[in-house]
Amino acid sequence: MTAGEVVVVGGGIIGLAVAWRCVQRGLAVTVHDDGGDDGAWYAAAGMLAPAGEAGFGQDTLTELMVESAGRWPAFAAELARETGIDVGYDSTGTLTVALTADDLAEAQRLWAYRRSLGLGVSPLGPSALRDLEPALSPRLRGGAHAPDDRQVDPRRVVAALRAILGDAVVRRRVDEVPAGVPVVVAAGSGTARLTGLPVRPVKGLVLRLRGEPGVLRHVVSGWADGRHVYLVPRADGEVIVGATQEERTDHTVTAGHVLDLLRAATDLVPVLGEFDLVETVVRHRPATPDNAPLLGAAGDVIVAAGHHRNGVLLAPVTADLIADLVAWGKPDPLLDAFSPGRFV
Amino acid sequence: MTAGEVVVVGGGIIGLAVAWRCVQRGLAVTVHDDGGDDGAWYAAAGMLAPAGEAGFGQDTLTELMVESAGRWPAFAAELARETGIDVGYDSTGTLTVALTADDLAEAQRLWAYRRSLGLGVSPLGPSALRDLEPALSPRLRGGAHAPDDRQVDPRRVVAALRAILGDAVVRRRVDEVPAGVPVVVAAGSGTARLTGLPVRPVKGLVLRLRGEPGVLRHVVSGWADGRHVYLVPRADGEVIVGATQEERTDHTVTAGHVLDLLRAATDLVPVLGEFDLVETVVRHRPATPDNAPLLGAAGDVIVAAGHHRNGVLLAPVTADLIADLVAWGKPDPLLDAFSPGRFV
Repeated sequence: MTAGEVVVVGGGIIGLAVAWRCVQRGLAVTVHDDGGDDGAWYAAAGMLAPAGEAGFGQDTLTELMVESAGRWPAFAAELARETGIDVGYDSTGTLTVALTADDLAEAQRLWAYRRSLGLGVSPLGPSALRDLEPALSPRLRGGAHAPDDRQVDPRRVVAALRAILGDAVVRRRVDEVPAGVPVVVAAGSGTARLTGLPVRPVKGLVLRLRGEPGVLRHVVSGWADGRHVYLVPRADGEVIVGATQEERTDHTVTAGHVLDLLRAATDLVPVLGEFDLVETVVRHRPATPDNAPLLGAAGDVIVAAGHHRNGVLLAPVTADLIADLVAWGKPDPLLDAFSPGRFV
Repeated sequence: MTAGEVVVVGGGIIGLAVAWRCVQRGLAVTVHDDGGDDGAWYAAAGMLAPAGEAGFGQDTLTELMVESAGRWPAFAAELARETGIDVGYDSTGTLTVALTADDLAEAQRLWAYRRSLGLGVSPLGPSALRDLEPALSPRLRGGAHAPDDRQVDPRRVVAALRAILGDAVVRRRVDEVPAGVPVVVAAGSGTARLTGLPVRPVKGLVLRLRGEPGVLRHVVSGWADGRHVYLVPRADGEVIVGATQEERTDHTVTAGHVLDLLRAATDLVPVLGEFDLVETVVRHRPATPDNAPLLGAAGDVIVAAGHHRNGVLLAPVTADLIADLVAWGKPDPLLDAFSPGRFV
């Protein structure tokens, strides 16, 4: 063991971001990853949306999301500067919309909660919504604008991080935690097997559509007859449609879920029916019993896992705080609420 | 040129079946095909359904369909005997169903026409339908049983024909009709380019679902809120869901069409929502101005093309009659109505 050495187990967006920040702190880093694109990031739409994602009772998690959202512009700019890869950080803002009166009533309760946390959410009527986003259905009953919510393309972020780390990422399946060296376990759902901590896979299906660029401009998150869907348009005409949540480990693309996603997507934005369906992707989010991440020491290792739906958003703050902990042994007070010890 | 030689241009189900019958008549046959699975047969569900397919005004075509349906049992048995490949010929019969009262009114007009042609179509009420096929939705307003309609697996039929023909199938893209040898043009939509005859591509999208074998037993062809869909269950749990019709040449999978097919399929058979969506396939049917095939001499060549939705059903009769014409110069009277000359 060399002083200043660390092994990161897991080459998803969290493991790679942690490794990058560790390198920047002067550590000799090796990332062990089984290769491929099995990580949740591969299906992630890349919404950076504290105001669009904060759920009831998640006050503390929301604080961490806001903190990480604030670090994203510099994180994205630094990646672009070091690699020349534009990671698709986009600041158009997010619309949350409701198709029916019932959907609107449900949404309004959530918006009120989010405003109580200090998040920017401005209710809008149907015509104001369509002024901002003409592709929205005229049937919508209402919505809200979250001007501070953002998006990024997770596949590009991973490509940039892999480019920076180069040979430091070693293709290796890890069946037990390496001995004799400081280790960060950032293995997503695989963290359960390596550490015994309660991280479970939550299956998600995402569709990728492709059409005319610019038809849809904002990220749209919405409810259509009780079904939740989000639509994330990229600059090249791709629109990500997500995402189902199931407590299952299989990788099958269920016909009824494709139907539900397409129906909700076209209910909210009818022109999407004319787009091409170019990909159906199933991946598994790593979730914990309270759906907040595991960040910090657990026995002999440091854990950075269990980010559930928020891995992309939380990557910058996770990377900074975990790298500080590894390099300097300093646990930031922000980590307190997310200690793996809460499940031991 | 050798006496008794013939070149077949096109290695889809029609070209291969014609070639097989020509070999059996003592001819030296070469099939020129560009390889791959671009043919309409690759997406075809394989319904052998004169009673389920006969459209208004298609009396003469329906006679040919009935004739070919009668030849299918021997055709399938002979393929199995020569190759050991079970081509999935199934005699469970077909149900045509209607979701709403409007769908039922439309269906009843078509059933009356089909009965007037002598086809077996027995109307059934909702409960009788569900006695035959318990997976059908209780919302259905009515249906009919076509006990003589059948199905076969077109991909297996092509595999069997390719196995029989072996080296006689040569991978070659044909840009003009070969000279100095008798030629059968069976090139699907490509027949237009080679002969100048009016064959146009009609784009079709088919979905393949997979689930528990035996959940659905009958071929189901139906209307759901004005959308037509058919569901063809295979013995292994696969269910083919088809098919859209568009006058387009592209190969894109349109999101709205996937939505329409899945919605109609699950409206008629709700349990299909739990099946896996394993494939989306686009291919182009070769259609003529009157949607009947082109069978017979056209200038220096013999044509067997333009079978539109009925290529699989019409393969046996097409193969027999065209091979007779090639080998013995005898045009069967059944061919009269389908002469390519009607468009010259």
